[in-house]
Amino acid sequence: MIVVLKHGVSEEKKAQLISWLEALGLRIHISMGEYQTVLGLIGDTTGVDMDLVGSLEIVDSVKRVTEPFKCCNRKFHPEDMVVEVGDVKVGGGNFVMIAGPCSVETEDQIVTVAKAVKAAGAQMLRGGAFKPRTSPYDFAGLKAEGLELLKIARKETGLPIVTELMNIMDLHLFEDVDVIQVGARNMQNFDLLRELGHLDKPILLKRGLANTLKELLMSAEYIMASGNEKVILCERGIRTFSDYTRNTLDLAAVPMLHQLTHLPVIVDPSHATGIARLVPPMALAATAGGADGLIIEVHNDPVHALCDGAQSLRPEEFSVLADKVRAIRGIVA
Amino acid sequence: MIVVLKHGVSEEKKAQLISWLEALGLRIHISMGEYQTVLGLIGDTTGVDMDLVGSLEIVDSVKRVTEPFKCCNRKFHPEDMVVEVGDVKVGGGNFVMIAGPCSVETEDQIVTVAKAVKAAGAQMLRGGAFKPRTSPYDFAGLKAEGLELLKIARKETGLPIVTELMNIMDLHLFEDVDVIQVGARNMQNFDLLRELGHLDKPILLKRGLANTLKELLMSAEYIMASGNEKVILCERGIRTFSDYTRNTLDLAAVPMLHQLTHLPVIVDPSHATGIARLVPPMALAATAGGADGLIIEVHNDPVHALCDGAQSLRPEEFSVLADKVRAIRGIVA
Amino acid sequence: MIVVLKHGVSEEKKAQLISWLEALGLRIHISMGEYQTVLGLIGDTTGVDMDLVGSLEIVDSVKRVTEPFKCCNRKFHPEDMVVEVGDVKVGGGNFVMIAGPCSVETEDQIVTVAKAVKAAGAQMLRGGAFKPRTSPYDFAGLKAEGLELLKIARKETGLPIVTELMNIMDLHLFEDVDVIQVGARNMQNFDLLRELGHLDKPILLKRGLANTLKELLMSAEYIMASGNEKVILCERGIRTFSDYTRNTLDLAAVPMLHQLTHLPVIVDPSHATGIARLVPPMALAATAGGADGLIIEVHNDPVHALCDGAQSLRPEEFSVLADKVRAIRGIVA
Amino acid sequence: MIVVLKHGVSEEKKAQLISWLEALGLRIHISMGEYQTVLGLIGDTTGVDMDLVGSLEIVDSVKRVTEPFKCCNRKFHPEDMVVEVGDVKVGGGNFVMIAGPCSVETEDQIVTVAKAVKAAGAQMLRGGAFKPRTSPYDFAGLKAEGLELLKIARKETGLPIVTELMNIMDLHLFEDVDVIQVGARNMQNFDLLRELGHLDKPILLKRGLANTLKELLMSAEYIMASGNEKVILCERGIRTFSDYTRNTLDLAAVPMLHQLTHLPVIVDPSHATGIARLVPPMALAATAGGADGLIIEVHNDPVHALCDGAQSLRPEEFSVLADKVRAIRGIVA
Repeated sequence: MIVVLKHGVSEEKKAQLISWLEALGLRIHISMGEYQTVLGLIGDTTGVDMDLVGSLEIVDSVKRVTEPFKCCNRKFHPEDMVVEVGDVKVGGGNFVMIAGPCSVETEDQIVTVAKAVKAAGAQMLRGGAFKPRTSPYDFAGLKAEGLELLKIARKETGLPIVTELMNIMDLHLFEDVDVIQVGARNMQNFDLLRELGHLDKPILLKRGLANTLKELLMSAEYIMASGNEKVILCERGIRTFSDYTRNTLDLAAVPMLHQLTHLPVIVDPSHATGIARLVPPMALAATAGGADGLIIEVHNDPVHALCDGAQSLRPEEFSVLADKVRAIRGIVA
Repeated sequence: MIVVLKHGVSEEKKAQLISWLEALGLRIHISMGEYQTVLGLIGDTTGVDMDLVGSLEIVDSVKRVTEPFKCCNRKFHPEDMVVEVGDVKVGGGNFVMIAGPCSVETEDQIVTVAKAVKAAGAQMLRGGAFKPRTSPYDFAGLKAEGLELLKIARKETGLPIVTELMNIMDLHLFEDVDVIQVGARNMQNFDLLRELGHLDKPILLKRGLANTLKELLMSAEYIMASGNEKVILCERGIRTFSDYTRNTLDLAAVPMLHQLTHLPVIVDPSHATGIARLVPPMALAATAGGADGLIIEVHNDPVHALCDGAQSLRPEEFSVLADKVRAIRGIVA
Repeated sequence: MIVVLKHGVSEEKKAQLISWLEALGLRIHISMGEYQTVLGLIGDTTGVDMDLVGSLEIVDSVKRVTEPFKCCNRKFHPEDMVVEVGDVKVGGGNFVMIAGPCSVETEDQIVTVAKAVKAAGAQMLRGGAFKPRTSPYDFAGLKAEGLELLKIARKETGLPIVTELMNIMDLHLFEDVDVIQVGARNMQNFDLLRELGHLDKPILLKRGLANTLKELLMSAEYIMASGNEKVILCERGIRTFSDYTRNTLDLAAVPMLHQLTHLPVIVDPSHATGIARLVPPMALAATAGGADGLIIEVHNDPVHALCDGAQSLRPEEFSVLADKVRAIRGIVA
Repeated sequence: MIVVLKHGVSEEKKAQLISWLEALGLRIHISMGEYQTVLGLIGDTTGVDMDLVGSLEIVDSVKRVTEPFKCCNRKFHPEDMVVEVGDVKVGGGNFVMIAGPCSVETEDQIVTVAKAVKAAGAQMLRGGAFKPRTSPYDFAGLKAEGLELLKIARKETGLPIVTELMNIMDLHLFEDVDVIQVGARNMQNFDLLRELGHLDKPILLKRGLANTLKELLMSAEYIMASGNEKVILCERGIRTFSDYTRNTLDLAAVPMLHQLTHLPVIVDPSHATGIARLVPPMALAATAGGADGLIIEVHNDPVHALCDGAQSLRPEEFSVLADKVRAIRGIVA
């Protein structure tokens, strides 16, 4: 950490600050510029409150030199992490297509969609049983029953299942789920993250609506610091002033995350745009931009879907898309 | 709800759409413009998926005429809600000052600060026992012990206590807390909101970092629809491109919320700015802008605070501020 | 335009509003809902101030049914516009690669880069002679001399030239320029746009940092309403809270603009990210996402570039990229 | 400037970088941390391209220690700047109220409004003659004729006039204007700023929709570096995801700018909100938050205003507001 002092600070105040920092177990390297003094803090600065130091009267500004995340930092883990879900591999050159309906509605629906997306090449099945909804009056999912229907679809197709957990108290219901998804609104539900860190099960961690990449990595760090290293990151659009789409897909996050971390990064073009017609171009763009996979909403009857029908592809549209995804993957991989 | 059809839609497709909408229990009022046809949907449209209708091939756009929130809608509740916390009233002309440290640290600390803020005119004590922290390596609060220390401070001063609940599983520990705070990151933790709706206890609901006013009101609706009407809203800064402050305080939200809802609205200038020096001007601004109260971080020793010292006022600074707040309140109330 | 009245408005006030609207030359269609009255305004509402109507005491909200842009509206121009620059076609299935340095620096530099990008398959040469710079102390371009050097490079390679005009007063210097670029900061320099509308020359219009797609189209409308229909739109990143890249590339704007307008849409991955390493993945993503072309910064010696070296590719990197772009274009076109 | 090198950089590459930096006239101070090497650049770093240095292969990150603005930097000008406009003083404890219509429409209108706002205590008259409009089909102002009408209103009331210049080519028309306004959309019209730097006339510089405080100060620097030190800054709302108001008023910018610069800072609550009903609370908030003045839209007949009627106060509303502003000013000044 580097601390820039204000111009004209007295020697006495400078000495006080240095004593205070040394009391935190740090060594201090002093560098006098033409105009300002700069302190280099050497040692473990993980526990130093950067905002507090920056707020001190004699301090001009503060800069972290080392990132505050370790478990998910590529600097310490240069090799790509490969997350295994049964026979399916994600990351390190392995591209995954996850598809399925926003909500699980009936056995017929989920099995039909599962077979269709498998035929088109999907390697995992997604489907919501517990659904976060902005309005208390909207359909909130079939809950435990939905999980059972997902398992039936898995049995019929062999596809591992990915589904969202909203609440620690439901965790016991997810024992036989293959990948647990943490939704965007729960990205900073720290108690939940910590609990998931005690599992031996892959976690699909979605970026929050207004979270920076550093915050996403700190949330991955919560899971990993508790012992579970199987984390897949997911870019799903951020909230900006732009109002034509539900969110703004931040695709540059993909190569940037690949530089910062060794974890796999997939993209959700369905939630990023909220508009079915925009899903194929953005899915292709994500593939071309280097994503390790896609998670896409597919519904056999979008007009009658109980949730997010507006952004769901029909199985035949997904099939056409999947062919193009593979072709592009052949060029960029 | 109003549905604008695309130009040149065939009569057959139009009739299909109308049948589909009627099947949802709605009456349809058709209006033919020079260029486009507009359908007025009459009846209870709360359950109609606006995005889905908007995604239909023949639909140009959709507009809601009535807001999807009812319990917290001023249209149906023209009188200001007054939330009572013991003898303290909030809203409807009653202004409240809530103050205290970011985190409860020791009995001595919390009692000292409680006495100081009471002397300066604060009517409630705030203090975090369960702390959401971006990094898994940061101090996360004293938890149950912190709640006990808050109760001691309440006993010493008579100030009701406000503290954050992060997790439904901890709810039993909060029985004797006066006001439960829902933090910004939990504003859309819908299971938590629903649970708080079953209590008979005031809830302080903070606006999320990237949430619209409508979303804030929908979250209040979750609590109220479950039966608990005692909700106090709190503006605490939103995330924007602007990087000089931690967040951007959106003060116009105060008069706008007063128009949309009858619930009281307070402001948190400490988290909105993250910088102690900016807290007094923004607290005064919030008061002048019509807020029903303030929640402010005060610490007796900010430099050694375990959390958010950078944004805490010293008791003497809070006292000077409180005098000015009362003077401004005398002008605008 | 649709005007929703507040609940319980008196018949007298309603009649007054209707008279006022009729005085603007509109016919009014009244529709009574269960709870609210809705007025449909029929006729030319282009000149009606939507915000003003929305601010009237008896009005709840207002919605435009028809977009306020006409010349660039796909509804009225279903066929793709093809903009021709000499022999080069842009749009309607014609993909263009534009490349060159941020700033023109020397004859040797611009000719070298021009030859290199031509060899790699670029069809136009970009290069800044007039440079907008945030700081008054930064290099602001070679100005008239830079334009002359661009013409030399054109003569040497046959590539048409694209360069930015910042100021109407310099317009006479741009007579022999092939495509005039309007930079992001000038997207709403309305006097400049109107003046460019009087030319018979293609305009490359970049989206502003914080402008919606509608505002971008209204700016294109300024040019087209004055008579010049040769407009190429360019997405180059928007400003959001996300701070890892200079801007956030909003790729979904490409298919969305294709739906709203018949004008060609290209992408600038260099300014969108500001980081050379991210340019290839975002260029490929833009291609896969359906862009009609790319404009990319290429410099033969980025480390010594006078401007934006951080985001420039070397010619050999551009050449590798161009091959992949063509391969992806083969899949999606 | 501080340059943090990546872990494990070879001595040879380090030496190359140091030579390159020394060739820019800088002295380099090397500091070896436990994990990384940090270079301190001593000397004039104004011309060093921070992004370029940051993009070098061996560099981890870069931080500026001194701000790149000088003329408007409070570090070098600790005393408040007082800008004088005739007898009116702005800044350094002098509070100014500027009021008037969005657009000048007729002699009768502007004189009536001028008299009314003067009676209420305004010290300057605002009014647009050249109007930037998003749509080419909207009223764009009376132009030169509007300026003449403003001068008549000045003659009738003695109020100095403030009006917007959009285009350098119109500058000759503004000789007899008291304060030239640079609108938000022109905040980075660098040629215009430079030209205004050659005048001996106060400039009211509005913050752009999506510009940081640093960029605002760099734009002030353009004017001041050319010789004109009379700059008044104006916060007028920024663009965010929040959609209830036209813009989001960023009031914390006021005390933050007061810390960074010695220039006066005023607030425009009319454009910040776009809604007349929100103007009084936000004007009071700005006053309480420490602004050096307000610029407010007042129209004698908002419903028939040719522009921005939705956000204009009536004279009697302004008068009530002005009394409260003075009362609050009495408390905070």
